[in-house]
Amino acid sequence: MKIVIIGSGNVAYHLAKAFHRNQMAISQIFGRNETDLKSISAELQIPFSTTSLMDADLYLICVNDDSIGEVSQIISKENCLVAHTSGSLPKEALRGKFRKASFYPLQTFSKSKALDYSKIPFFVEAENREDSELLKNIALKISKNVMESDYEKRKYIHLTAVFSCNFVNHLFARAKEVSDSQNIPFDYFLPLIDETVSKIHEMEPKLAQTGPAVRNDERVLQIHEALINDEEHLKIYRTMNESIKKMYEL
Amino acid sequence: MKIVIIGSGNVAYHLAKAFHRNQMAISQIFGRNETDLKSISAELQIPFSTTSLMDADLYLICVNDDSIGEVSQIISKENCLVAHTSGSLPKEALRGKFRKASFYPLQTFSKSKALDYSKIPFFVEAENREDSELLKNIALKISKNVMESDYEKRKYIHLTAVFSCNFVNHLFARAKEVSDSQNIPFDYFLPLIDETVSKIHEMEPKLAQTGPAVRNDERVLQIHEALINDEEHLKIYRTMNESIKKMYEL
Repeated sequence: MKIVIIGSGNVAYHLAKAFHRNQMAISQIFGRNETDLKSISAELQIPFSTTSLMDADLYLICVNDDSIGEVSQIISKENCLVAHTSGSLPKEALRGKFRKASFYPLQTFSKSKALDYSKIPFFVEAENREDSELLKNIALKISKNVMESDYEKRKYIHLTAVFSCNFVNHLFARAKEVSDSQNIPFDYFLPLIDETVSKIHEMEPKLAQTGPAVRNDERVLQIHEALINDEEHLKIYRTMNESIKKMYEL
Repeated sequence: MKIVIIGSGNVAYHLAKAFHRNQMAISQIFGRNETDLKSISAELQIPFSTTSLMDADLYLICVNDDSIGEVSQIISKENCLVAHTSGSLPKEALRGKFRKASFYPLQTFSKSKALDYSKIPFFVEAENREDSELLKNIALKISKNVMESDYEKRKYIHLTAVFSCNFVNHLFARAKEVSDSQNIPFDYFLPLIDETVSKIHEMEPKLAQTGPAVRNDERVLQIHEALINDEEHLKIYRTMNESIKKMYEL
């Protein structure tokens, strides 16, 4: 079975690497960015091309959401399976006469950052049982957590990820602005952050809540509001505290 | 030098344990809750009392912010040092003729959760250099990260902690409501969350930002808004996305 990866960004790189590590041959990595393709090709010993797409049984399109439709049009072959890796697009975003699918790894990828691929949950969806089993088996070569998920469910998965990953990172970025303003190294907060996350591996986040809002400590909330001199910080501060109070009916 | 811990909650327990592990003798643990005191006393071989406060050189008051003032009044001795462990109160919240201080461990404590004490930053403040050196040396028995910090600075430390710990945990709690609504196990999101935090050990949170808002992906933002049927979720969703867009000038 021939597999081709289209794209040369973070997702393409890490999927290629995960396959490589698990002795799954990738026949080609195809894209526009020759520099990135060359670097992936050299590291993982996968042939690359920027011009001639190889004939394959499965194409994995690992490009930005906005480009998926257009990029998929380069696949003229009909008797093949094509999957994109987006959490927020239906498989019908792919344009062509091939069989369409989704192969969604739930993880945040940075090229420079090593990852334990075996822990990444994969959500797959295809037009028929056979394709869906095929994709599940391929994902199972990488990870233990593989599930089917239609587009409706995938939208909620992505939304949950936005709350628990994207927004969380933004809170770190805003928190760092506060500590920077007082020349307090943000590194001092890493043990606290690590422990906050370590806790929810063992207990429900709702039961792990601490801080002034859940204690309904108006004195501290007032002190903090008086300290904050950035409009966005204040909006976040108020929105989060109000939401905490609502959750605990305070 | 005789040290007494007042209180029997999470902070009292973990401080007592951290001292115990580092061969620092605690002369007594004093409080109201006999059950908790007995349990700490049995585990760490520290004498306890609910009625008779022992004479000591240093009292560490580990009780809720609201009780610190009242609890400190039980210390009638004048020639001693008394420190509270609150991030959000000045040392003057202590009431008495003793020398006042603050001994603030920046961490979230749960009784059942083991901690690496050596990584906890301690912020200390006292009325004079001698007391402040004493507190620093005591903290250094537990941790490598010990700094002086006056009340003004401590308020910002606490505010940073609220953003990067309390609010982050609340995002997890809200995210779990989204995944629960679709019967998606929240455990599936733990590798993503772990990676989100792992990343900021290596790079600036601002540079690690991913997600639809920083891509200015209006299509996905609209899809998510249509999915959300909880008012608090929607408020958080909009506030965080607007703040992300502002930060990156989108």
